[in-house]
Amino acid sequence: MNPSEWFTEQVPGAESAFSLKIKQKLHEEQSEFQYLEIYETETFGNLMVIDGCTMVSTRDNFFYHEMMSHPALYSHPDPKRVWIIGGGDCGTLKEVLKHQSVEQALQIDIDERVTRLAEIYFPELCESNNDPRADLRFIDGIKWVKDAAPDSVDIIIVDSTDPIGPAEGLFSEAFYRDCYNCLSENGMVVQQSESALYHMKLIGEMRNAMSQAGFKTLQTLFFPQCLYPSGWWSATIASKADLLKFREQDCADKSFDTVYYNADIHKAAMAQPEFFKKTFSL
Amino acid sequence: MNPSEWFTEQVPGAESAFSLKIKQKLHEEQSEFQYLEIYETETFGNLMVIDGCTMVSTRDNFFYHEMMSHPALYSHPDPKRVWIIGGGDCGTLKEVLKHQSVEQALQIDIDERVTRLAEIYFPELCESNNDPRADLRFIDGIKWVKDAAPDSVDIIIVDSTDPIGPAEGLFSEAFYRDCYNCLSENGMVVQQSESALYHMKLIGEMRNAMSQAGFKTLQTLFFPQCLYPSGWWSATIASKADLLKFREQDCADKSFDTVYYNADIHKAAMAQPEFFKKTFSL
Repeated sequence: MNPSEWFTEQVPGAESAFSLKIKQKLHEEQSEFQYLEIYETETFGNLMVIDGCTMVSTRDNFFYHEMMSHPALYSHPDPKRVWIIGGGDCGTLKEVLKHQSVEQALQIDIDERVTRLAEIYFPELCESNNDPRADLRFIDGIKWVKDAAPDSVDIIIVDSTDPIGPAEGLFSEAFYRDCYNCLSENGMVVQQSESALYHMKLIGEMRNAMSQAGFKTLQTLFFPQCLYPSGWWSATIASKADLLKFREQDCADKSFDTVYYNADIHKAAMAQPEFFKKTFSL
Repeated sequence: MNPSEWFTEQVPGAESAFSLKIKQKLHEEQSEFQYLEIYETETFGNLMVIDGCTMVSTRDNFFYHEMMSHPALYSHPDPKRVWIIGGGDCGTLKEVLKHQSVEQALQIDIDERVTRLAEIYFPELCESNNDPRADLRFIDGIKWVKDAAPDSVDIIIVDSTDPIGPAEGLFSEAFYRDCYNCLSENGMVVQQSESALYHMKLIGEMRNAMSQAGFKTLQTLFFPQCLYPSGWWSATIASKADLLKFREQDCADKSFDTVYYNADIHKAAMAQPEFFKKTFSL
């Protein structure tokens, strides 16, 4: 294995690594916030890397983007206003806009360069960027949420990088409290919550912070994501409601295509592994 | 990343690779059948490698061994006689023997050296090897099944390496036909069926061969397995019965511990991703 032909991400702490064979480096730049690289890989299509961490590939991004959006949207009784904090590659935005109930989808990524590169190298993720319901802003999501008025939004999707660097504040109780305050009555946050094989401490801290911020119901969802550490990823929904009610019939009747997600997968993602139940006394 | 400090498995075709940082190589040998290596890793405990492919680690083997055994055993009305073809590390055997209904668990691995090394380097997987119901034989599993009389066994678990080398014959219609013939009325085969992200062609061929061999019901199960290509693995159950009936109450009442598996995970593993349903018209 010639290192110059492969992109490798090492996972600190786990001492594991995942590599993809590359055809060529298509682009690299230091943005105002992060170091961005784009590779063309042998079998995963294009690959975006931020600060050395794999973010998105053409081949396998569907798992993540579908699972960050549809389970939450089908667990809210009537999601009209959705904010995506982060998500600059626009893949989550595209999935959110598949829901006809959504009237406004606001994507707030601090780094405009991520979106400009996605438009070039991941055009299929950006194909809904001109939807009249879409609003892309390149500002600080933490401040945006802090300054928002009560009842401003129904679902906040935190589609961020790992909790180091610019995304660190997105994993704090203060941020979740600000989310709580600007969410509508049955509002919810859904946030990527790393790997239950590698990051149980982080998941525990996140769940605790969400509870402390006032959210009544927590639900961690599990799904495969080849590109991310351990290949097994999670998202955690924190809801102001007493219960997450899955609109199963609406999901079964959905008029749009998905690659991974469907009603059975929705329910499957909610199943908690035995060690997870024991750790969190579920 | 100094290559001498890491064990790396490249996945042919997918052009991806997974690596674990190693403390030391504990053992290596050429057995009569395969090249066997044992490493001590930084964070995954011990690691067994066969012909360059990661087979089992201390840290994450529970996913695979639990999912190769419990879903099938709780889908059979009364599993008394279980054969494990392959499975020389004894981890599947240990899980099978947790079921009190099981009267005989016969492990048939062609390579005795795998088991001898597991006894030294994975003693926790071998702790049921002396159970009076366990019977370990080191013979050719393909021939064993071919020669077996009708109604000899209730569940056959094919816990094999990839379909190259000694395991190749375990993925053939002829083998499944021999399984069919020696299974009891509601008998079933469960076989590891690789990754639905990387190996859909193989899964399709396997499912087709199982159907051609006479099995009435097929069910592919999905679960995480960090160590294996793509981190997302599967097993496929082929049953002679018209339907797999999950003994959910028995599972909920189980008297033994598991790390990953439980009744919710059982049902979750049966959920078929949208692309999978479309490919196989499920």
